[in-house]
Amino acid sequence: MKKIKVIIAGARGRMGREAVKLVHETENFELVSVLDIKYDGKSLSDIEGFSHIDVPIYTDALSCIHNSQADVFVDLTTPAVGYFHTKMALENGVRPVVGTTGFTMEQLAELKHLANEKKIGCIIAPNFAIGAVLMMKFAQMAAKYFSDVEIIEMHHDQKLDAPSGTAVKTAEMIAAVREQKQQGHPDEEETLAGARGADYNGMHIHSVRLPGLVAHQKVLFGLPGQTLTIRHDSFNRASFMSGVKISIETVLHLDTLVYGLENILD
Amino acid sequence: MKKIKVIIAGARGRMGREAVKLVHETENFELVSVLDIKYDGKSLSDIEGFSHIDVPIYTDALSCIHNSQADVFVDLTTPAVGYFHTKMALENGVRPVVGTTGFTMEQLAELKHLANEKKIGCIIAPNFAIGAVLMMKFAQMAAKYFSDVEIIEMHHDQKLDAPSGTAVKTAEMIAAVREQKQQGHPDEEETLAGARGADYNGMHIHSVRLPGLVAHQKVLFGLPGQTLTIRHDSFNRASFMSGVKISIETVLHLDTLVYGLENILD
Amino acid sequence: MKKIKVIIAGARGRMGREAVKLVHETENFELVSVLDIKYDGKSLSDIEGFSHIDVPIYTDALSCIHNSQADVFVDLTTPAVGYFHTKMALENGVRPVVGTTGFTMEQLAELKHLANEKKIGCIIAPNFAIGAVLMMKFAQMAAKYFSDVEIIEMHHDQKLDAPSGTAVKTAEMIAAVREQKQQGHPDEEETLAGARGADYNGMHIHSVRLPGLVAHQKVLFGLPGQTLTIRHDSFNRASFMSGVKISIETVLHLDTLVYGLENILD
Amino acid sequence: MKKIKVIIAGARGRMGREAVKLVHETENFELVSVLDIKYDGKSLSDIEGFSHIDVPIYTDALSCIHNSQADVFVDLTTPAVGYFHTKMALENGVRPVVGTTGFTMEQLAELKHLANEKKIGCIIAPNFAIGAVLMMKFAQMAAKYFSDVEIIEMHHDQKLDAPSGTAVKTAEMIAAVREQKQQGHPDEEETLAGARGADYNGMHIHSVRLPGLVAHQKVLFGLPGQTLTIRHDSFNRASFMSGVKISIETVLHLDTLVYGLENILD
Repeated sequence: MKKIKVIIAGARGRMGREAVKLVHETENFELVSVLDIKYDGKSLSDIEGFSHIDVPIYTDALSCIHNSQADVFVDLTTPAVGYFHTKMALENGVRPVVGTTGFTMEQLAELKHLANEKKIGCIIAPNFAIGAVLMMKFAQMAAKYFSDVEIIEMHHDQKLDAPSGTAVKTAEMIAAVREQKQQGHPDEEETLAGARGADYNGMHIHSVRLPGLVAHQKVLFGLPGQTLTIRHDSFNRASFMSGVKISIETVLHLDTLVYGLENILD
Repeated sequence: MKKIKVIIAGARGRMGREAVKLVHETENFELVSVLDIKYDGKSLSDIEGFSHIDVPIYTDALSCIHNSQADVFVDLTTPAVGYFHTKMALENGVRPVVGTTGFTMEQLAELKHLANEKKIGCIIAPNFAIGAVLMMKFAQMAAKYFSDVEIIEMHHDQKLDAPSGTAVKTAEMIAAVREQKQQGHPDEEETLAGARGADYNGMHIHSVRLPGLVAHQKVLFGLPGQTLTIRHDSFNRASFMSGVKISIETVLHLDTLVYGLENILD
Repeated sequence: MKKIKVIIAGARGRMGREAVKLVHETENFELVSVLDIKYDGKSLSDIEGFSHIDVPIYTDALSCIHNSQADVFVDLTTPAVGYFHTKMALENGVRPVVGTTGFTMEQLAELKHLANEKKIGCIIAPNFAIGAVLMMKFAQMAAKYFSDVEIIEMHHDQKLDAPSGTAVKTAEMIAAVREQKQQGHPDEEETLAGARGADYNGMHIHSVRLPGLVAHQKVLFGLPGQTLTIRHDSFNRASFMSGVKISIETVLHLDTLVYGLENILD
Repeated sequence: MKKIKVIIAGARGRMGREAVKLVHETENFELVSVLDIKYDGKSLSDIEGFSHIDVPIYTDALSCIHNSQADVFVDLTTPAVGYFHTKMALENGVRPVVGTTGFTMEQLAELKHLANEKKIGCIIAPNFAIGAVLMMKFAQMAAKYFSDVEIIEMHHDQKLDAPSGTAVKTAEMIAAVREQKQQGHPDEEETLAGARGADYNGMHIHSVRLPGLVAHQKVLFGLPGQTLTIRHDSFNRASFMSGVKISIETVLHLDTLVYGLENILD
């Protein structure tokens, strides 16, 4: 079987390091080069932590693409740079897999147009954790039948914002399909302010913060006599790699841009 | 809005009592009569526990159907009687909603043929608990991406069989789609026999039994760095009623027989 | 072995019915009479739901106590009546077991004085669910080592107050021993008001309300790299009966009044 | 306030590295030296990962102890070496804190005798995770009131033995106090062998193995109408450090050897 040839941009970042490891260890993937902001002309094996992986480092995206004969361009850099890379990859017939929440609607429209024109796949995903994406998808499906739902998200106590982005995204997806409803008893009262959590469109979101926790979320649904719970636990960054892997495999069979991992999962 | 007219067979049974309550309390449903093995010609209001519900009791299915002008025939009796009722309802243009696991393949085929001929809906469901049905459906969907799965089912300690029927059904549904795999470390050893639970097609099932528990099941999926858990808790018989309700509403829009609640949920 | 002879006051109430069942079914207990507000001189077997239990009904507490030769007087009535019963039982040498949160400090002091004088036991318990009492006790013990704690209580959506009394009681017990601390990141921000729950002395309490739920509480503790969770689930009123049973057995060996089940559990 | 002066043996090991970090970052602790099998005479700051910590490295235990004027000797080496170190520390008036399960009964007896003679504290702990130790302690306390218990332990799928050592230790502690009982219905049957888990003295233990999991255990207790659950989640090695910290603080106030963290927690 022919291996899938992969370029990784942002290889020295936290996500990038995991991606290098993934591509290196996956049998039918081959890491052909990496794109970086420095170390041009060196080998990745010259960099600490990569001693066993001898592939060229480029600092210029176009040279990297022209010289690498890659099938897939994985971008784990910043939104600004990533947009530029994604466009160039598409223009040169290399399929992008991009992890970012930072592209504007206009940028996404332009990239989609380009992918369609070139008739090649492109996957842009705000979240590569398959479990989190399935949790949101299932929550949305369940909300059609369970109009009562509460979300509990739990993170380490260094997190600054509450609720988490994933909790809000989940609530948005649920709100799009469920029968609108103000939950709880109409006469319920908080004897301590905040006890019932945040209100989002009539449903409640609770944010727990404790040392020791990593990133966890539960979506609870209730009907008379029964509850249904969908829970995702993320223990470390490796959780994103199964999503990157499935995206690399899937992007080869697409002929357009797909936004969001949920749209490539059945 | 025109109300949906409903007959209930088996109204004095444990499920039947809940169903009477449901139909009576649902605004767009109307209970028109009940079918019973005794009390012919009496009113349901003569029976203990139903004092406020004045609808006629029939002991003969055909008279019941002819006199009731019903839209839907809910059968919560036994498989033998239920089969007979379902056939008669279909023949007389009343749409059956039947809760049973006891029909044979031949009976199902015959009833399906009859529904198609009459071009009316018929729903036969082994499990009316929507949460349990969604849990199984989601578990099957997740298994495509998470090939490692363990099932933990938990019931009161008067239950005789282990694992539960729902756990085995879940495992079957997962086995039908997941990449075949013998889970756990190849060299793993039980220092106490049975610790790793039951093996079903390479996945593991664990049955917990404790006083206080009712009926609960968790399906756990793992990938590097993350886990996804789908859990259903059933606290009492009311859990079945949301499934009966949605079936009554849905059967009006079908023109064939559907087996299994999962096939009417999106 | 000599059986423990028991009077039950409030036998027709919801708790009382469970208590009658408990005493009747426990081998070394004997129900000798019940105290009620009506049906004087009748037998309990004349009352619906008790057909198999032939013990006399009294409406006068003093006659009941004088004629019954009981060891223990279980009171499941109201605080006002219960106080009067408890006093009379103590004065007549019968040991009271009382389920109430409603006695005043003065009443408790007076009853304690009386129990000491008579040198007989008396147990007054705001909560007979052993599991809930142990949860609070363990939470208090853990809080000495884990200064970060969040409480999540979950109830059916007909509950009017949030947080629950048990959650507040738990928080009070923890606050009494833990190192005072304002939890969460000092700069944390709620992008939706209420997300971080109620603040009680620097710790957070979250109240979940859903149909299907009964009465559940989790206490979560975190330290770097680990969490400890203590959870109680109450599914129905039977949960109180193990506490009544242990109280009936224990009160015989006391020579003073004990308030709170936690003080008779090791 | 005078700082507590600490020697660490085994500083370059996985536990040792965490302990160095802990002692270095705790305000009232001072790392005075480390004992290692090589690098004699160097500074810890010469070793990768410790660049900011300038304390001397010794390879000879006696020189280390004589020159360091330490209060506490933390040993995170092997049982064989650890025994030798512990003895030498006690003989020289330095209080040992040792993490091991490997000492024999004879070694423990000898070390206890020595600690008593010197009238100084010594703590030897098989498990430094406070949460795990409390879970076992609480489980034992609850088992007096809940005679029905099941243990579910969950680990990554590279673990070779099932059930885990902690699960067996928990079961032993419970068996020591609970009313002996064969749980489950007397007529229960496994339709798939192993479903009911391992039997330990009439209670059941279930071992779940999945990629993504780290080290987790739940102890579930049931009584009619209620369940009580005690759960510990260990996410990484940092979980042991709170136990090391409390041991360093506590050993100063002891005048004998204590085995097991549970015996210094109230």
